[in-house]
Amino acid sequence: MDGIFVGIDLGGTNIKIGLFDSELNLICKTSKAIQADMGPQVIVDKIAQTTEKLLADNSLSFEQIEAVGIGAPGPSNITDGIVIAAPNLPLFKNTPLRKMLSERLGKPVILENDANAACWAEFVLGAGKGAGDMVFFTLGTGIGGGIISSGKLLYGSADNAAELGHIIIYPDGRKCACGQKGCVEAYASANSTAKRAAEAIEAGAKSSLKKVLDENGEITCKDVYEHLAAGDELAKKITDETAKALAIVCINMLHITEPKRIVFAGGMIAAGDVLLNRIKDFFNENIWSLKKETVEIAFATLGEDAGIVGAAALAKQAKE
Amino acid sequence: MDGIFVGIDLGGTNIKIGLFDSELNLICKTSKAIQADMGPQVIVDKIAQTTEKLLADNSLSFEQIEAVGIGAPGPSNITDGIVIAAPNLPLFKNTPLRKMLSERLGKPVILENDANAACWAEFVLGAGKGAGDMVFFTLGTGIGGGIISSGKLLYGSADNAAELGHIIIYPDGRKCACGQKGCVEAYASANSTAKRAAEAIEAGAKSSLKKVLDENGEITCKDVYEHLAAGDELAKKITDETAKALAIVCINMLHITEPKRIVFAGGMIAAGDVLLNRIKDFFNENIWSLKKETVEIAFATLGEDAGIVGAAALAKQAKE
Repeated sequence: MDGIFVGIDLGGTNIKIGLFDSELNLICKTSKAIQADMGPQVIVDKIAQTTEKLLADNSLSFEQIEAVGIGAPGPSNITDGIVIAAPNLPLFKNTPLRKMLSERLGKPVILENDANAACWAEFVLGAGKGAGDMVFFTLGTGIGGGIISSGKLLYGSADNAAELGHIIIYPDGRKCACGQKGCVEAYASANSTAKRAAEAIEAGAKSSLKKVLDENGEITCKDVYEHLAAGDELAKKITDETAKALAIVCINMLHITEPKRIVFAGGMIAAGDVLLNRIKDFFNENIWSLKKETVEIAFATLGEDAGIVGAAALAKQAKE
Repeated sequence: MDGIFVGIDLGGTNIKIGLFDSELNLICKTSKAIQADMGPQVIVDKIAQTTEKLLADNSLSFEQIEAVGIGAPGPSNITDGIVIAAPNLPLFKNTPLRKMLSERLGKPVILENDANAACWAEFVLGAGKGAGDMVFFTLGTGIGGGIISSGKLLYGSADNAAELGHIIIYPDGRKCACGQKGCVEAYASANSTAKRAAEAIEAGAKSSLKKVLDENGEITCKDVYEHLAAGDELAKKITDETAKALAIVCINMLHITEPKRIVFAGGMIAAGDVLLNRIKDFFNENIWSLKKETVEIAFATLGEDAGIVGAAALAKQAKE
């Protein structure tokens, strides 16, 4: 066995760790729950111990590790390896995570934004392979993003580019969690899709989803797509609004960074072709005719492993 | 005198040519009218003859030319030096302009999109100097754009990135010349600003601009800003809509490529601080609070020479 690359995905509720061979094939992976009151040093120790156990369980040695990549949520200073803040981990504040982890492990470490890590994974090994220029959206609680321009991640002036969920598509529209109005995230994230359905029902719209709301006290995005499949008219209207909002940002991104491929990832793509095809329909209806055929819109292929794959791939790239 | 760099700006109605020293100081410049029925070879000959005369008039020799840059309107394949089409020059179609001009002059030539050339000029020598990441808008008949990412022009997968006038900000909104609906160009170009004023008056709005429309049969963007200065309420409403549309695309670009500076150029910036300050007002009202202070919004400083300066600067850069 050649050298090993470690890919780490630091989430709000757990840490995922994967070991990869030099061709970026996954050897093994594990996941550990974490709590909001854990500070950076506790997390770093947990990562080190979990990695050591994962190596031992697979008859691998610590010495084989070539490099480590870690994807972290929230705004980071990538250049200096600092996590500025992390949602659900309030004790992380201007934390020099790259340095801390590198000192603890005695290995080279790269730090990356989690959405960028997943974007890079899809670009190198998944749905964006060979695209050169790619745009990546994660559709979950919120909407995250990544941009590949001429084969490289686009960082911006302070490493906070590609906040694609906060592109305003309806000025003065729905309030977004970020404080702006009319962000695409306020319409087309999984949460916003479910929330718009619940609001419509509360405002009197007829729908088979009313029973779900009454019984569960809430509606999920999965519920909305299930009732769409069963022919519910409100679910049709809500999911069309979601698809149209996503199509508009696809058009905008095509005019801005001109990707060859646009890739959607995240929990919401479980909705399947009914989502993808409606995004394409609205894209074709709203784009200027010259550019209609110039971009491919696709779903991600790496699933939940994208975070650890991308972190390992970036660690490998930095080592080369 | 060291080597000379030639910067050429091929417009729809004239060709501008400037000679620059190796520090990109303008030595001299000239402009020649062209007609829509001129084909590529006629234009290339005209460029060569005009350049030769400009050199002779300034006691310079053809041998001093180090390299030539030309900015062309419309979509181009920059990599291969081909003008795909040029507005107002219908005989240009998949024209290998770089090769033709290089063969005619016997000098290295670079071809660039005209908005990119002006963007590069402002980045290297104008309002974007030192920014590293910059976004550039030209406000004229339409709205053009350019993006500098990590100190380089961003091209996209087919050299057609940064079509920033066609970012959709009001889905299903005003029809744009490109065929889409709700593009920022349909609201905030000089032409659209004037057109919205004329439409409002035709629909019955009261305004001191009615007299202009009645007398001249049209309203210009300059008229609108003059009547704003004189206190006209409709002019205030129309120009606020223009500033707000531009502020929304500034916010969107900040979330996408995260520029350090956003620079506006083109005829419309003659409106002055009243335009710039309103863009900043609407930007501050609509951006999320975390990012309020992270970008500077400014007007271009190179004026109409930006096209020739940028073409020469790109020629110099390619030579290095």
